[in-house]
Amino acid sequence: MLMSQSAMPVPTRKVQVDLANRSYDILIGPGLIEAAGGEIAARRPGARCAIVADETVAGLHLKRLEASLAAAGLAATRFLVAPGEASKSFAVFERVVEALINARIERGDLVVALGGGVVGDLTGFAAAVVRRGVDFVQVPTTLLAQVDSSVGGKTGINSAHGKNLIGAFHQPVLVLADSAALDTLPAREFRAGYAEVAKYGLIDDAAFFSELESNWREVFAGGPARLNAIETSCRAKAAIVGRDERESGERALLNLGHTFGHALEKATGFSQRLLHGEAVAIGMAQAFRFSARLGLCAPSVAARVEDHLAEVGLPTRIQHIQGGVSPVEGLMAAIAQDKKVSRGALTFILARGVGGAFVAKDVDPAAVEAFLKTEAAPA
Amino acid sequence: MLMSQSAMPVPTRKVQVDLANRSYDILIGPGLIEAAGGEIAARRPGARCAIVADETVAGLHLKRLEASLAAAGLAATRFLVAPGEASKSFAVFERVVEALINARIERGDLVVALGGGVVGDLTGFAAAVVRRGVDFVQVPTTLLAQVDSSVGGKTGINSAHGKNLIGAFHQPVLVLADSAALDTLPAREFRAGYAEVAKYGLIDDAAFFSELESNWREVFAGGPARLNAIETSCRAKAAIVGRDERESGERALLNLGHTFGHALEKATGFSQRLLHGEAVAIGMAQAFRFSARLGLCAPSVAARVEDHLAEVGLPTRIQHIQGGVSPVEGLMAAIAQDKKVSRGALTFILARGVGGAFVAKDVDPAAVEAFLKTEAAPA
Ligand SMILES: NC(=O)c1ccc[n+]([C@@H]2O[C@H](COP(=O)([O-])OP(=O)(O)OC[C@H]3O[C@@H](n4cnc5c(N)ncnc54)[C@H](O)[C@@H]3O)[C@@H](O)[C@H]2O)c1
Ligand SMILES: NC(=O)c1ccc[n+]([C@@H]2O[C@H](COP(=O)([O-])OP(=O)(O)OC[C@H]3O[C@@H](n4cnc5c(N)ncnc54)[C@H](O)[C@@H]3O)[C@@H](O)[C@H]2O)c1
Repeated sequence: MLMSQSAMPVPTRKVQVDLANRSYDILIGPGLIEAAGGEIAARRPGARCAIVADETVAGLHLKRLEASLAAAGLAATRFLVAPGEASKSFAVFERVVEALINARIERGDLVVALGGGVVGDLTGFAAAVVRRGVDFVQVPTTLLAQVDSSVGGKTGINSAHGKNLIGAFHQPVLVLADSAALDTLPAREFRAGYAEVAKYGLIDDAAFFSELESNWREVFAGGPARLNAIETSCRAKAAIVGRDERESGERALLNLGHTFGHALEKATGFSQRLLHGEAVAIGMAQAFRFSARLGLCAPSVAARVEDHLAEVGLPTRIQHIQGGVSPVEGLMAAIAQDKKVSRGALTFILARGVGGAFVAKDVDPAAVEAFLKTEAAPA
Repeated sequence: MLMSQSAMPVPTRKVQVDLANRSYDILIGPGLIEAAGGEIAARRPGARCAIVADETVAGLHLKRLEASLAAAGLAATRFLVAPGEASKSFAVFERVVEALINARIERGDLVVALGGGVVGDLTGFAAAVVRRGVDFVQVPTTLLAQVDSSVGGKTGINSAHGKNLIGAFHQPVLVLADSAALDTLPAREFRAGYAEVAKYGLIDDAAFFSELESNWREVFAGGPARLNAIETSCRAKAAIVGRDERESGERALLNLGHTFGHALEKATGFSQRLLHGEAVAIGMAQAFRFSARLGLCAPSVAARVEDHLAEVGLPTRIQHIQGGVSPVEGLMAAIAQDKKVSRGALTFILARGVGGAFVAKDVDPAAVEAFLKTEAAPA
């Protein structure tokens, strides 16, 4: 990645997640890892901290975080896990939980998750169950984690039967999104996270999507445009979570692109062949093409969505997946298994336009299958 | 145990746990296992059920539960674990969680815990984390589980570092306490559960304790006195939980006898040498003797408590533990490690009299140690 160009201190942005007595701040800005000690001590003077990080992120950012906590008078222990989705397993979860108990983390103390969505999900879930729940702070270091996984309190690990099937709703007490930490992120990971940024525009903010179409290069380069994009994304997610914490309705909109995307991740075995954000990019392009096919939006809208995702370098079609994927039947099975099929109908997030996503609960599986057949044909 | 003598149908007692939108009923009466299907179907018509039980309880009561669910049109799968505290482990927890996911338990479905506190704690915790929380029903089959562990939403497993350190607050949607199921319970287990019944009298209900002193033989024999005792106990716990679900204050009173008791359980390795309820009996007797020593209550009050527990056949002194326990230092270390020592002081539940328990946050460790030395001396 390019380095952030700012030399002057950039003011920190603040977004509040509004959940009564569990409300919390998301702070966004460069240098928040160095400022973490001060921000945490201001809220929890003298708290004992236990940091969980993956080895890659620890090598790049842990020392500065530890120094910042120490300077603010906060004692901290550390526990490292291997990078990658495989750490969202029962075995690693048990090790993290026992390490936190061993570090004598109790009510009033803090668990700190330093890393991407994997570390955030794993650590947040561990914090949820240690002594039936201790507080935790998210320090997300991927774009995906900053705009999506660190916000909203969904935590968890993977089951032998599927992803994210085991977990808890456990809100952090603070999110520190250091935008400068993204400077060390591989370009492919940044792009994958960008798919979730674009998603917020596609769901219900056409103006934001237009802005991204014009300014995406600045978002990738760093500086104020990146901060704006992260802030707008967090604000969008915070608003939805504030209204529907437990996903009984509206929060499902955040799954735009995720039903198709998840089936593709399954088909590629959740491997490095297809990152989560890349799967979501293809899934969103598919959701719009499917919406166009159903007559919900114009084909030109689907083309516009695909064009933007392709322009930033994201995949938009099954054919873009390295090594190919299993045939239509495999995807259909994954979709049907994933979703609770109520009276034969599937639930999808569809769209009437850019910024016009909605929850469709009565999608005919036959229509999905017919659509997937057209998608599978060589472009 | 003796058999319940009633031939006529006995009306079911109902206690409500009042927790806003998570309120639920505790039903108490003989034959509730046979009535489970009807009670569950009335609340959740057509729900898919997954029963978790231990092998001993399954052999005695599972068939009738399954028949009752089937008769009410409820599909049910079953998963059995080994009886005993060792099943509250990470390994068994993982197996239960994966079995529930494999049984396709989702929101709207029900997990049913059939057994004692071990199965209830383990299964409730599994229900708390499958798909970030599915509903569950407690069908407690020990006296301890009927009057204590099945009520109030504390669920969990044991850590390598200590008991019940991993878990969740997850309230059941219904508790079905079949008092006739206790007829198959070994006498020693019934007695151990009775310690928790007596506890409610000692905490804040002197009249109930007096009643138990007169009527305990009827409680052990079954029939209306047993129902009354279970109902009064559940009502007491429900009231405290309704006011302090997360144990930020008053709920700590339920730990009367548990600090000393827990240290004794540790010292005996949580083995069959000392059941939880037996440890609580000794712990309560100690809490009253310690209170007397501190001048909080008359020595005659401590003697009265000890007399009643001894009369029903419960142990009341360290010397009653088969095989003996580690010396004073070991118990002190367990107590200090167990409790968060804040500024050198320990928190204990002490009493000014029968029914006059209170939370003492400023107990001097030296006073505890001196007391334990007098306790360790041959009686
Ligand atoms: N909880 C939620 O609401 C939610 C939402 C979306 C996704 N998720 C989960 O998030 C996970 C994906 O998150 P992710 O994309 O952040 O993956 P990740 O945590 O695996 O991070 C991706 C890679 O980038 C590395 N990395 C992280 N920060 C870095 C940095 N600053 N510099 C260099 N390398 C860095 C990591 O070591 C890792 O190899 C998935 O498990 C997904 O299920 C959760
Ligand atoms: N969650 C809470 O609030 C809470 C409160 C108190 C205790 N607990 C926990 O409860 C557990 C102890 O519970 P327990 O005493 O019920 O132990 P348990 O579940 O181990 O049951 C005791 C024994 O009785 C057998 N049994 C159960 N029902 C029977 C029946 N009807 N007939 C014949 N045998 C039967 C079991 O197989 C077992 O061998 C401990 O793990 C403790 O930590 C939890």
